[in-house]
Amino acid sequence: MTASTARPLDRAALAERDASDPLAGVRRRFSLRDGLIYLDGNSLGASQWAVAERVRRVVEEEWTEGLIRSWNTAGWVDLPGQVAGKLATLLGADADEVTVTDSTSANLFKAVVAARRARPDRRVILTDDRNFPSDLYVAGGVAELLADTELRIVSPDEIADHLGPDVAVLTMTHVDFRSGRLADAVGLTRAAHEAGALVVWDLSHSTGAVEVDLHGWDADLAVGCTYKYLNGGPGSPAYLYAARRLHEVLDSPVRGWFGHARPFDFSPDHEPAPDATRFLNGTAPVLSLAALDESLDAWSGVDVATATAKARALGDTFIRLVDERLDGYGVEVASPRDPEQRGAQVLLTHDEAYPIMQALIAEDVIGDVRPPRGLRFGFAPLYVRYVDVWDAVERLRIVLDEARWDRPEHRHRATVI
Amino acid sequence: MTASTARPLDRAALAERDASDPLAGVRRRFSLRDGLIYLDGNSLGASQWAVAERVRRVVEEEWTEGLIRSWNTAGWVDLPGQVAGKLATLLGADADEVTVTDSTSANLFKAVVAARRARPDRRVILTDDRNFPSDLYVAGGVAELLADTELRIVSPDEIADHLGPDVAVLTMTHVDFRSGRLADAVGLTRAAHEAGALVVWDLSHSTGAVEVDLHGWDADLAVGCTYKYLNGGPGSPAYLYAARRLHEVLDSPVRGWFGHARPFDFSPDHEPAPDATRFLNGTAPVLSLAALDESLDAWSGVDVATATAKARALGDTFIRLVDERLDGYGVEVASPRDPEQRGAQVLLTHDEAYPIMQALIAEDVIGDVRPPRGLRFGFAPLYVRYVDVWDAVERLRIVLDEARWDRPEHRHRATVI
Repeated sequence: MTASTARPLDRAALAERDASDPLAGVRRRFSLRDGLIYLDGNSLGASQWAVAERVRRVVEEEWTEGLIRSWNTAGWVDLPGQVAGKLATLLGADADEVTVTDSTSANLFKAVVAARRARPDRRVILTDDRNFPSDLYVAGGVAELLADTELRIVSPDEIADHLGPDVAVLTMTHVDFRSGRLADAVGLTRAAHEAGALVVWDLSHSTGAVEVDLHGWDADLAVGCTYKYLNGGPGSPAYLYAARRLHEVLDSPVRGWFGHARPFDFSPDHEPAPDATRFLNGTAPVLSLAALDESLDAWSGVDVATATAKARALGDTFIRLVDERLDGYGVEVASPRDPEQRGAQVLLTHDEAYPIMQALIAEDVIGDVRPPRGLRFGFAPLYVRYVDVWDAVERLRIVLDEARWDRPEHRHRATVI
Repeated sequence: MTASTARPLDRAALAERDASDPLAGVRRRFSLRDGLIYLDGNSLGASQWAVAERVRRVVEEEWTEGLIRSWNTAGWVDLPGQVAGKLATLLGADADEVTVTDSTSANLFKAVVAARRARPDRRVILTDDRNFPSDLYVAGGVAELLADTELRIVSPDEIADHLGPDVAVLTMTHVDFRSGRLADAVGLTRAAHEAGALVVWDLSHSTGAVEVDLHGWDADLAVGCTYKYLNGGPGSPAYLYAARRLHEVLDSPVRGWFGHARPFDFSPDHEPAPDATRFLNGTAPVLSLAALDESLDAWSGVDVATATAKARALGDTFIRLVDERLDGYGVEVASPRDPEQRGAQVLLTHDEAYPIMQALIAEDVIGDVRPPRGLRFGFAPLYVRYVDVWDAVERLRIVLDEARWDRPEHRHRATVI
């Protein structure tokens, strides 16, 4: 534990920060129960009143009354593009470079395959061993699928050294799903380009939480989920970004009518849409997509830099309070302390992580665990307050101090996502 | 036009058939407005009261209150398997052979790739030129993606002749999306097996409308959508069937954590789930999936053979009424007249198909058009009544007789799915 040298924080000072928080009004869009401290927005974002109303309208009016006509009259057919436009703003991209569809894993598959085929003379897909497991499965599947393709997995620190002339694609997750460690997106993208490779970023733990500037990064391809900091709802459709300069050389391996230039001509011949829409395939899950569309309006009028700065400040506050108030309980900070190197989540480690988290949830503080020893807390900037951070640490302190975690009901294992 | 030799049908006789219809009670589950005749359930099924309530609960209780915990406490993590179990009954399959995920196109991609790789010595993917365009795009994409693979497209009548020793995969749509013509699933599957090929059926226009018996067919793989006769809601997730005897040799090209044997171990190594679940990849769109789960309960207690027989009878009635009452208006029946060769939809042709359908919709009869000359009507057995068929033909007769279609507002083209 690193002891802080400044005067210890107190709750009143944090309440003052909330009072002057320019995002305080945004929190009122979210339907969070009083007393509950939700620090798992990095896994599933909270819901909003307007989203519930929108979904009700989609089911009870658009589907029930409009029936098939709603594809046109309620704009269902335009939803992927409409959502892409909202996401583009958060990604530092243009609307025609983004499409919203499928799962993150499926989009990663399409992106990595497309990138590998755009570099036909190079056989290596390079990734790191801290990548999200699903991303490793996807990359392994691509390597087995495509002729003359090899998956090379190295430690994150070795990535730059492995960017040789045989590398077709570098694919990494921008924010480590456990520690929150931030990859150097600008530096690695530049290094990959200098080596002649394309890069596919997974931004699942980034968008809405840390600054993402795909144009500024000179990014090639990216994917990400929308149900974490973007609050789209459980399993809301993921997105895929493809830089405009690459549209003509990127072919989606998973074709389908919604990726066609003119889907409703029912032509037997495939002609990909001219933009990122070519990465669509079948019909979108409209209920889930409409929820996402509505949820993104929480970002309307929000300065993304303000939000990401708040997320960093919340994480800094959490780490400082852990240092100041949890000394001696066996809790370690496993995330980077430098906020410039950290996403909007903080990982603590403890040998009894699982029962501690269950006991904390019983105290109305929700985070999650990541094996083997991780207690993970996410600081979604749109609805987490500074006093929530104080209260969460205080309740954690009580759980540890009184060994509330050491009870049979908290040791009982259930599947946890 | 073929003139009927029997005494002409009248509306009273059809009302009697409705009165004795064992499925009459099921219709009350559906929230259809009085007066509206909905004959587009082959494109988007109608909604049910219980589905609206279920979706409300998922959003307002499970997501809003349960938050991340609902993956366990509300059973979200079990939803794909739960829905697969309900679908298996309708498919003549077992639950471990079915998985629910992604779009039909994406599932077709996975199925065709897996089948081709299970027949490594054979290079041809065989399909027919009447297949749904999206399926042709998918198959073409697979042929371009995989080494040494060729897509061969022939007419439906020539399929059997092309089942040579070079064919790895035959993929066809069971019910032609335009004409409703039924492929000979049993005969073609047997012929393909005798030739050493695997078969991937697209059952999008079949399940819930015509008898599907995947075990009886000795089927290998199948995919299908759930938003037509299964009423799952716009873009509800599709399904994939993989025969148990093939599970060990079928590898999904699109991997992801939900297809892993133990997703929440976060192991870096891919180990596919032992059953059809291996074809899952990322997180399911829970709102859309829950709607589907609820919608399938309409089939609880329904004898599928009774439902498919009713669908055929409704189609027969429609054709007979078209013959008897629309003679001389330039309308032709373009679907097979033999109900054993037809799905639950009937295609009429007319040079002015588009404005005629718009005028008919203005009369509260909803069908759709398929280029260039098709007026398509679907007879979903769970909620279409015999009197609806009478009334639809009568309104169509008036539209034609009074040339109501010949107005500028009906000729105005909007995108129609």
